[in-house]
Amino acid sequence: MAARRRVAVVLSGSGVKDGSEIHEAVSAIIALDRAGYEVVFTAPDVDQAATVDHLSGQPAEGERRNVLRESARIARGEIRPLSRLRPEDYDAVVFPGGFGAATNRCSFAEEGASCGVLPEIEKLVRRASDDGKPIAAMCIAPVILARCLGNGVRLTIGTDRGTASALEKMGAVHVDCPVDSSVVDETRRVVTTPAYMLANGPAQVMAGAESLVRELGRLLESA
Amino acid sequence: MAARRRVAVVLSGSGVKDGSEIHEAVSAIIALDRAGYEVVFTAPDVDQAATVDHLSGQPAEGERRNVLRESARIARGEIRPLSRLRPEDYDAVVFPGGFGAATNRCSFAEEGASCGVLPEIEKLVRRASDDGKPIAAMCIAPVILARCLGNGVRLTIGTDRGTASALEKMGAVHVDCPVDSSVVDETRRVVTTPAYMLANGPAQVMAGAESLVRELGRLLESA
Repeated sequence: MAARRRVAVVLSGSGVKDGSEIHEAVSAIIALDRAGYEVVFTAPDVDQAATVDHLSGQPAEGERRNVLRESARIARGEIRPLSRLRPEDYDAVVFPGGFGAATNRCSFAEEGASCGVLPEIEKLVRRASDDGKPIAAMCIAPVILARCLGNGVRLTIGTDRGTASALEKMGAVHVDCPVDSSVVDETRRVVTTPAYMLANGPAQVMAGAESLVRELGRLLESA
Repeated sequence: MAARRRVAVVLSGSGVKDGSEIHEAVSAIIALDRAGYEVVFTAPDVDQAATVDHLSGQPAEGERRNVLRESARIARGEIRPLSRLRPEDYDAVVFPGGFGAATNRCSFAEEGASCGVLPEIEKLVRRASDDGKPIAAMCIAPVILARCLGNGVRLTIGTDRGTASALEKMGAVHVDCPVDSSVVDETRRVVTTPAYMLANGPAQVMAGAESLVRELGRLLESA
């Protein structure tokens, strides 16, 4: 029997307001697990840009949390630091969304189109892309791909004009997309889905994740 | 159009080792949302019994976290304290699992069959049961129902003999159950599924959650 294909799921904490959006991350891994992929969790071993009290929506002053440790809550402890993820460990990469994607993995939330990306993240994206491995991103996480790949890469963050315009300033081509579907750049081997940029609840997020994983699988098959 | 049925999802933090098991909670709300129910998140506004570093599995000394605030990460901020949940706010109740269910909501993890349950939780379970509202529980959370309802209530925690025996000491009747199915006590209107007591990954947890919500819906229809 052939070894199962492995998909690196890159987390950025645990919680929509300062980490990975939990429904998106879990929907992605349910869809990946159902489709027979092995999930390899990874996250940068850095402090969160901020800790947000998810009840009040306000910053939790003085509370310092580590991205890798908080991500381990979603991963049930089975997660490795991004610095120890080797190219031979994965056949494809998935970035769930959440505000942490725009703060812990890059500075889009503060700097918009001129944002920087965590060097470890940029290295992963460039290496995967150079190796022809499919890369998928949900919700706001496509900003990372726009920043790292730019140069006409086709992707979606749903229909939000402001964010779409920022992505285009980074050199991406934005394509509107409904919540239960995804946009595929066949040449660049990139798949994106709007998730909570458009979703009204977890069932719609799950439908988008299923579409994302289906397209990711198609790209893997066409390697 | 009839108002949507509302299901209270009772959380106990965010993370398998000191709170609600995240995959179980999200699988339950995906299944509920898909089936057209409105999810009403609630959690006790108390400090966690402990905070566990999910990377090392060790206690995070000196880190105090609040159950309601951490639960708000899964709920995306839309959650109310259990003390403010009124009977008219819900038609059914779901308890996801996770170690927090056995520590923050009751003391099963320390005391086994002689455990106590948080008074707010016991009040909710008794009131829902007295009102004939269906109650569902996943993974280890059925211990709460065994403790509060006892008296021959039929439920499952999968196939683990030790835990099953503790449940029976509390007066419950344990029924073995595969991971993608659930056990229904038609008279007591209780549904339980093994989830991570047996599951090898999130796809199996999702299959169990779908079974749980299907049976919950059947009980709601037969009200």
